[in-house]
Amino acid sequence: MAELVGNLLVAQSGGPTAVINASVAGVILEAGRHMNVVDEIYGGLNGIYGILNEDLIDLQEEQQSAIEGLKHTPASALGTCRYKINFDKNPEQAKKDMDRLFQVFEAHNIRYFFYAGGNDSQDTSNKINEEAKRRGWEMRVIGVPKTIDNDLPFTDHTPGFGSVVKYNATTVMEIALDVSSMATDAGSCCIIEVMGRAAGWIAAGTVLARREQLEAPHIILLPEIPFRQEAFIARVKEEVAKSRYCIVVVGEGLKDEKGEELGADKSKVDAFGHSVLSGAAETLKDIVEAQVGLKTRTVKLGYAQRAAAHHASEQDVTEAVACGEAAVRAAMEGKSGFMVTIKRTNQSPYEFQTGLHPLSEIANVENLIPRDWISEDGWLPNQKFIDYAQPLITGQLQIAEDNGLPKYVHLAKERVEKKLPAREA
Amino acid sequence: MAELVGNLLVAQSGGPTAVINASVAGVILEAGRHMNVVDEIYGGLNGIYGILNEDLIDLQEEQQSAIEGLKHTPASALGTCRYKINFDKNPEQAKKDMDRLFQVFEAHNIRYFFYAGGNDSQDTSNKINEEAKRRGWEMRVIGVPKTIDNDLPFTDHTPGFGSVVKYNATTVMEIALDVSSMATDAGSCCIIEVMGRAAGWIAAGTVLARREQLEAPHIILLPEIPFRQEAFIARVKEEVAKSRYCIVVVGEGLKDEKGEELGADKSKVDAFGHSVLSGAAETLKDIVEAQVGLKTRTVKLGYAQRAAAHHASEQDVTEAVACGEAAVRAAMEGKSGFMVTIKRTNQSPYEFQTGLHPLSEIANVENLIPRDWISEDGWLPNQKFIDYAQPLITGQLQIAEDNGLPKYVHLAKERVEKKLPAREA
Repeated sequence: MAELVGNLLVAQSGGPTAVINASVAGVILEAGRHMNVVDEIYGGLNGIYGILNEDLIDLQEEQQSAIEGLKHTPASALGTCRYKINFDKNPEQAKKDMDRLFQVFEAHNIRYFFYAGGNDSQDTSNKINEEAKRRGWEMRVIGVPKTIDNDLPFTDHTPGFGSVVKYNATTVMEIALDVSSMATDAGSCCIIEVMGRAAGWIAAGTVLARREQLEAPHIILLPEIPFRQEAFIARVKEEVAKSRYCIVVVGEGLKDEKGEELGADKSKVDAFGHSVLSGAAETLKDIVEAQVGLKTRTVKLGYAQRAAAHHASEQDVTEAVACGEAAVRAAMEGKSGFMVTIKRTNQSPYEFQTGLHPLSEIANVENLIPRDWISEDGWLPNQKFIDYAQPLITGQLQIAEDNGLPKYVHLAKERVEKKLPAREA
Repeated sequence: MAELVGNLLVAQSGGPTAVINASVAGVILEAGRHMNVVDEIYGGLNGIYGILNEDLIDLQEEQQSAIEGLKHTPASALGTCRYKINFDKNPEQAKKDMDRLFQVFEAHNIRYFFYAGGNDSQDTSNKINEEAKRRGWEMRVIGVPKTIDNDLPFTDHTPGFGSVVKYNATTVMEIALDVSSMATDAGSCCIIEVMGRAAGWIAAGTVLARREQLEAPHIILLPEIPFRQEAFIARVKEEVAKSRYCIVVVGEGLKDEKGEELGADKSKVDAFGHSVLSGAAETLKDIVEAQVGLKTRTVKLGYAQRAAAHHASEQDVTEAVACGEAAVRAAMEGKSGFMVTIKRTNQSPYEFQTGLHPLSEIANVENLIPRDWISEDGWLPNQKFIDYAQPLITGQLQIAEDNGLPKYVHLAKERVEKKLPAREA
C-alpha cells in the first residue's frame, strides 16, 4: 500500500453528545502515532458548514491537557452543524457546495477526513468519499459513529447512547424516589419526556432504573408502539391503585395509531423538514389529569440529557475514544468509505471490538427496537433489552471540578490561515 | 435541667430535597449519643399525615449501613406530605387533627419531636409546640430547616439549596456548551425552567455557570423582578447578535408587571390554594419564536433538580447532617420551639455554625433575594450573590454505584405496633 502523505481533518456534525469530543480525542491521539504520514492535524469548525467557510483550526497547537480533557467535555468542542449537502432538494446548491468543499480540501492538502455524526452525517461522508473518487482526489474518508439516538444500523450501539441512558435512568430513579415519597392517598403522576424521534432506544433505556424495591418507571411509551389512549388510561389507573404513584417515560416522537405524533406542532418544521415536537409530556399530562383525575407533573430533560458529561458512562467514553482511534487506523491501512462500528464480542463479561461497515449502506437507515425486545403488552422493554443495555452504562468517572462545577475544556482554536477567497453565498 | 426520658420521633414534610435524608441521618446519629434519655427512635411515615394514622417505624431496626446511606439518598426516605393542620381554613378539622396527634404522641410516649421541612412545616412545628405547652405534655419540638427554595428567614441558607444550585448550574453549563457548539449563523435559544415560586434563589444560582470563556446563562429571569416583555426581546436580540446563541434561565414563578404569573394555569390550584404553574418556559419560547424569529428549545428540570443526589454538594450534605444533629443537641439541652439555623461564620475560607431561632417568628415568612444582589438592569444576579452562593456548591461526592446507577437506600421500615383505634376520617 502506497503511503498517503498530507493533512488530516476531523469535524463534528449533528446534535452533540456527552462523548462526541472523546471520539475527536481518539482521532487526535491516534493521528499522533502516524506523524510519518500526517503533516498537520486540523479541526473543522461547525462541521461542513464551517469547512465551506474554510474555518479550520490547528489541533496540534492545543495543550495536551486540553486533548485529554476532551474525553470528558460535553457538546461539540469543534462546533457542529445541521447543514446538509442536499442533492435531492437543492441539486444546484449541493453541486456548488461540493465544489467548494473540494477546493478547501485541495487548498489545505486534506488527505484524511473524519466526520463524527449520526445518519445524516454518515450520508455526507459517503457523498464526500464518492466525490473524491470521481474527482481523483486521493483522500481517505472514515465516518465515526455518534448519536444518543442509537439508531445507526450495522453497529451494536452508538457512542453517546450509554451516557444518555446512564443519566436518564439515574434521573428517572431519583424522580421516582421523590414522587413515591410524596405519594399519600391522593396519588400522583410524573411524566418524563426524553429524546428519540423515530426510535425509542433512549426512552427504553430508563427501564434500567427498575431494580430492587423500585418498580418505576411503570410505563415507557416508545415511538415504536402506537399510543392507545384508552389502554394507557387504564394502565395508569391500575398502577396508582397499586402503588399510589405512576412514573411514565415518553419518547418525544410518540405516535398515535394513525401515525401522528403526539404534541407535534405541525405548523413548524426544522431545517430537515421534520416537524418540531414540544409537547408529548404536556399532552399526556392533560390526558391523565382529565381522564384519571390525578395530579400530574412533567419533566422535559431536553438538551440536558445529551450534554450530561458530569454523569457519563465510563464504558461509553472508552468506546467513543476507541471509535476515533479505529477510524484513523483504518485510514492508515488504506481504507476509505467506511463507518466504524462497535461489535459486542462477549456478553458476560461484556467485551467489544471495533469494526468497519461501508458508508454506502448506512446512510439514512434507521435502526428501531426489535418488537421482541418489548413486552407483549407494549408497556415496557423486556429482559432482552435490559441484557443489551445494562453493560453500556457501567463505570463511574470522577470528573475534575473547579469551584464546585465540572472543569470542562475550551479549545484555544488557533486558526489555520485561509487560502481561498470567501465563499459565495 | 431535669432529664426528659422517653421516645423520639422524626418526620419529614413538604417537597423532598437531595439532602433531607441527610438531616434525618443527623437526627438518628445524634440521638444514638443520648440513649440515656432516648428510649426508642421512631420515624413518622409521610409526615403528620402518617403520624395521624399512627404510621410509625422503628429506626433502630434499620441497618447501620442504611442510616449512613441516607446521607446520600434523595427524596424523603420516611415519606413526606403536604398535609397541613389549618386552623384558619378548617378550624374544626384542625382541632380534631391536633387532638389525634397528641393521642399518638401520648400513646407512644413521644418526648422529642423533630420535623424537617420548609415554611409550612415550621409553622406546623410551632403549632405543635404551642399545643404541647397548652396541654402540659412535656415534649421538645425542634424544626430542622429544609428547602431547595432557600426562602426561610433567619438562616444564612437552607440545606438542599446548595445541591440544587450545584446540579442546576452544572446542567446550565452543559446545555450552554451544547447550544453554543450548534450556533451557526441562524442562531438559537434555549430556555431552562427551574423551580422557585416566590423567590428566585434557585434560578439565580445558575449564574455560577458563568465562568472562564462561558458567558451563559445570558439572562436569568427572577420572580423578584417583574417581567418586561419588550426589554426581554431586546436583550435576547442583543445577545444573539453578539454570540449567536442565548441561554435563558427562568424561575417558574416569574410574574409580569401586573403581578400575574407567566404560564400559570389559573383553572388549577394545589392543596394550599396556589395556582399550578406549568409553562413559564413554554410561554417565553412562544415569545422568542414569534418576536425574535429564533429557533428555541425548552428544558424543564422539574423534580429532577431537587432529587439529583448523584451530583449533590458535599458542603450541603455536611450541613444537612449538622442541622439534624444540632436539633437533637438543642432538645437535649432542654430547648423547644426553635428551628435550627445556619450561620456563616467566615466567608473565605467559608465556615459555618448552627444556631437556633424561635419557630414562632419563622412560620410563613418568605425570604427573597435582596434587590442589591441583582444587577441594576435586572437581568443577572451580581457579585454579592455570587460570593454568597459559591461556597455552598463545593465538594464532590463519590456516590457508590451498582450496575452503573447510584446505590440508594431503601429503609426496611419495621412498623411500630399501633396502640390506638384507627383515625376517624
